[in-house]
Amino acid sequence: MLPLAPENCVDVLVIGAGPAGLMCGNALAAAGGLDVRIIDQRPSKVSAGQADGIQPRTIEVLHSYGLRERLLREGNQMHTCAFYNPNDVGEIELTSRAPDVTAPTARFPFEVCQVTLHQGAIEQMFLDSMAAHNLRVDRPVKPVAIELSREPEELHDLSSYPVKVTLARLDATTDTNRLEVVRAKYVVGADGAHSWVRKAFGITMEGEQTEYVWGVVDIVPDTNFPDIRNKTVIHSTNGSCMIIPREGDKVRLYVQLSENDIVDPGSGRVDKTRMSSEQILEVARKSFHPFHISPSSDVEWWTIYIIGQRVASSYSVEDRVFIAGDACHTHSPKAGQGMNASMNDTHNLAWKIVQVLRGCANPSILKTYEAERRKYAQDLIDFDKQFAALFSGKPRTSDNQDGVSHEEFLKAFQTFGGFTSGIGVHYSPSVIVNTKHQKCAKNLIIGERMLPQVFVRAADTRPVEIQDLLPADTRFKILVFLGSTKESRLMEINTLVNELSLPTSFLRKYPMGGQASLMFDIITIVAGDKQNFNYLSVPVIFRPHWSKVLLDDTDVTGRKGGGAYSRFGISTEEVTFVIVRPDGYVGMIAPAVALEDVHAYFASFLIAHAV
Amino acid sequence: MLPLAPENCVDVLVIGAGPAGLMCGNALAAAGGLDVRIIDQRPSKVSAGQADGIQPRTIEVLHSYGLRERLLREGNQMHTCAFYNPNDVGEIELTSRAPDVTAPTARFPFEVCQVTLHQGAIEQMFLDSMAAHNLRVDRPVKPVAIELSREPEELHDLSSYPVKVTLARLDATTDTNRLEVVRAKYVVGADGAHSWVRKAFGITMEGEQTEYVWGVVDIVPDTNFPDIRNKTVIHSTNGSCMIIPREGDKVRLYVQLSENDIVDPGSGRVDKTRMSSEQILEVARKSFHPFHISPSSDVEWWTIYIIGQRVASSYSVEDRVFIAGDACHTHSPKAGQGMNASMNDTHNLAWKIVQVLRGCANPSILKTYEAERRKYAQDLIDFDKQFAALFSGKPRTSDNQDGVSHEEFLKAFQTFGGFTSGIGVHYSPSVIVNTKHQKCAKNLIIGERMLPQVFVRAADTRPVEIQDLLPADTRFKILVFLGSTKESRLMEINTLVNELSLPTSFLRKYPMGGQASLMFDIITIVAGDKQNFNYLSVPVIFRPHWSKVLLDDTDVTGRKGGGAYSRFGISTEEVTFVIVRPDGYVGMIAPAVALEDVHAYFASFLIAHAV
Repeated sequence: MLPLAPENCVDVLVIGAGPAGLMCGNALAAAGGLDVRIIDQRPSKVSAGQADGIQPRTIEVLHSYGLRERLLREGNQMHTCAFYNPNDVGEIELTSRAPDVTAPTARFPFEVCQVTLHQGAIEQMFLDSMAAHNLRVDRPVKPVAIELSREPEELHDLSSYPVKVTLARLDATTDTNRLEVVRAKYVVGADGAHSWVRKAFGITMEGEQTEYVWGVVDIVPDTNFPDIRNKTVIHSTNGSCMIIPREGDKVRLYVQLSENDIVDPGSGRVDKTRMSSEQILEVARKSFHPFHISPSSDVEWWTIYIIGQRVASSYSVEDRVFIAGDACHTHSPKAGQGMNASMNDTHNLAWKIVQVLRGCANPSILKTYEAERRKYAQDLIDFDKQFAALFSGKPRTSDNQDGVSHEEFLKAFQTFGGFTSGIGVHYSPSVIVNTKHQKCAKNLIIGERMLPQVFVRAADTRPVEIQDLLPADTRFKILVFLGSTKESRLMEINTLVNELSLPTSFLRKYPMGGQASLMFDIITIVAGDKQNFNYLSVPVIFRPHWSKVLLDDTDVTGRKGGGAYSRFGISTEEVTFVIVRPDGYVGMIAPAVALEDVHAYFASFLIAHAV
Repeated sequence: MLPLAPENCVDVLVIGAGPAGLMCGNALAAAGGLDVRIIDQRPSKVSAGQADGIQPRTIEVLHSYGLRERLLREGNQMHTCAFYNPNDVGEIELTSRAPDVTAPTARFPFEVCQVTLHQGAIEQMFLDSMAAHNLRVDRPVKPVAIELSREPEELHDLSSYPVKVTLARLDATTDTNRLEVVRAKYVVGADGAHSWVRKAFGITMEGEQTEYVWGVVDIVPDTNFPDIRNKTVIHSTNGSCMIIPREGDKVRLYVQLSENDIVDPGSGRVDKTRMSSEQILEVARKSFHPFHISPSSDVEWWTIYIIGQRVASSYSVEDRVFIAGDACHTHSPKAGQGMNASMNDTHNLAWKIVQVLRGCANPSILKTYEAERRKYAQDLIDFDKQFAALFSGKPRTSDNQDGVSHEEFLKAFQTFGGFTSGIGVHYSPSVIVNTKHQKCAKNLIIGERMLPQVFVRAADTRPVEIQDLLPADTRFKILVFLGSTKESRLMEINTLVNELSLPTSFLRKYPMGGQASLMFDIITIVAGDKQNFNYLSVPVIFRPHWSKVLLDDTDVTGRKGGGAYSRFGISTEEVTFVIVRPDGYVGMIAPAVALEDVHAYFASFLIAHAV
């Protein structure tokens, strides 16, 4: 008879400690007060391989968790993308160099490449951050059974633990301590492209494998290729290559291969043993001609794969079990989206789970996770299909007039710039995205991330980037664009103060633990000048701390800040609320005269508390 | 009979672990390979008090040791200085607000205030950095005897240890382990205003005590004063005050007192027991009228002092014992120079000692320490006398037409901006400052610190700040302004390459341990554009690594960089060498045609090595 497995309860069980799982675990741990567990079946963190460019929007997101400094210190930055195409004699030559990022509002207008081999990599960064919040990855542990209650009553009861997961400790020495049962309120399956969680619930992947086959190899190159430190796209008559310069002197090469080289004809599956790093490099060498390239030391890491472009049919089961990251979408690595999409999935999900667990938000907001992220994944795959076809296609030459022209490729590269940078991600209207008053700030797009902008703090004229005041701390940020504070507007402002002070005001209805400041953070932006403005003149309700009053003015050097009202399209003659979600996306905009709409917005998904 | 004290030898003994001693210890430890010891008689680091604004130039210097990030993360920044003066009815009111820093070339155009109370303060920052280089402060230990050999032979012998210091361990439990004899090649006395080292060698302080008496108090204020978060100068009819906003909500107040209040009439010395923080605050309260100010919690720290403006008659004894920091200069805290001057003293000294100890530089360069830093201290005191008189003087009012007018004060504040920011520090010609070819780059002043400027790296178009490539790593930085690389200039450039490759070239004559790169770092700046330039076209001697070739062009966003040749006044039609000393100051500039002068510059103080 098997011994009874021990049982315990957690608020959230995160399965998988790749980019999506780590982002999730870190966000949940940082929120505080929750019982979170994160498991991974690998005995230690991956030593190499799972790397991509970190896109500008992902840098902003990592920054909102306080992780940017380390990322930028340790990663390599890509500012330029170079394009090489065949000349008349079929040898590649530089066609043009273009900015790698074509998103004018990007705060960090470059990509960062960081590979998980080193302590400094993304994965270690998250592990260190989680450890600071007392969360560590439990490994090697894998789920062997999962059961979700389908009782409506249990599913609706926030105090219940409707998911039962049996875990196996892979390094257990005896049967007694091998199995364990965990009962969870929520489970996040971030367990990769072959997701066990996804399969356990029979969620299918939609889409197809494509015929593109790529080899990837990491080397320190010995080369006379002039753009070896730029991201470079090579279209040669021999096939395509992409160069991703890495930290130090390392470089990652993506090399287009022939399907025949690596697919086992019997099984139809990729068989890595049919290929070697030497063979990949041999293909690269031909594509680089007339330039030479060879590894100056041992190949650090290599792999091969066939691009799949697929998305899961569903992202959740009963809004109690979620899947995220590679578990719900796979696509080509060419546009460098994989790790970015994965981390942004759980960045989107984590705050919603936290607010529901706290009893502050209605569980209905969890539905927005699939709505927002699955649509994004589909868009990503549509983009990826077009891009991968262009990328893997033969270049246009005098012999091949049907090939892909450089102009065609460059146009696609730039058209998709907003998309590939992550800056253009746009969430559709939902319970948490209300576009009714978009006209009040026509250039701050509701459903997109809050634009970066420098203001000066009224009290000490220090220039501050508004994004620095929008940490991913699970709070809604209420940006109060107060407008000018001239005499004639004081009555209007005072009336607003009185309305906001009523018990029916959203600032009074949803305090967490009796403190409104745990639910909302108020930042007031005045159209005033630093020479004469007195921050103490701002009503106390808009000034929870001296640091929260900003001026739309330049700093003392005149080099930074100013012009935001006009840039955003906000009037200085009325009060405008810009509500930024905990994940940094603009959720609603409203003029003070439509204060009722703000109340209604929050009332639609927040739960009022007796103080 | 006393037991014999144990004896041991060190390269450098640093006495005192305040700002000057810590900068010294850290710089020596970071250089590597030296036997360094640092002692302090205090049982633990100071818990409060030794604080000042960190000036823009000091931020640059700390950055050159890799310490900026933490400083800026943890310190409070001051961007604006506000001025309050009496109005017609004698109440203070805002006269004007001005940029706190008036140095147009400052890379960090603000002051940082950080007080040594916290882990994050300057002192802890240095302690952590030193620990990373395996150097820890030995405490509580104080010197009780010091002897310097006066034998010329011993003094000139670089392998000798001419200074004998007897140390007493203050926490020793027995006589046996109380005393210790250390023999040192060099001793740096950074032991404060009452320097034991200075007195031991009979070095006198020149200058006088002045009549200005100040109280200092650290509080979290409860106030309606509008500029409490700005550096503020208050001239009231009741006396002067200065506000230095600190980290968090804390504020430091400097309050002018009457000498009678605190000097013991019998001894003529300051007697702190005659004053209390309540009394200081009472004076402040009167000066703040009609605004109110009071501590919202207990007073954290307070003190009183009389300003002394004095400089040591000598900074060294036989160039084997040096004094630095408060040990050689004292001045008023108003312009916030104390900690800055102290750290910059040893920043100037440390690399010189290192290069002499390594056998790379002639000991004659040590004389430049006193020449450069004593002149600076004298200038500082001249400035301070004028400034303190204006600061402590009664304001001009209708009743007091002889008082100091605001215009007079503001003019002094701005005139001295270059000086108080540290940006304008100018070292006179010497063996390491050669102004012969100043005209080749008329806006890069020889003897001043290298100007900040953004370039783009040729290989990857990443924007880089040139100051980031000038770490305080004891190496001379050879900035090769190659000019344009058009066809017509190739012969000239090739000739230069050949000359620099000769065994008589400075690049070949002074290798350390056989490696030129340990003595010199070459950075090449090309007047070229990022679209077309191939960094591999730069001769290998000017390109020790792909990251060392820069372009004078804008980055891909067009927002940063460009225009340096014209800004510096350097021709793009010839090669110009800009030699930056290890401490970041421009030591020499020369056109390639005057290469002999560059050879002569280094030959005058470096020691040639057989490879």
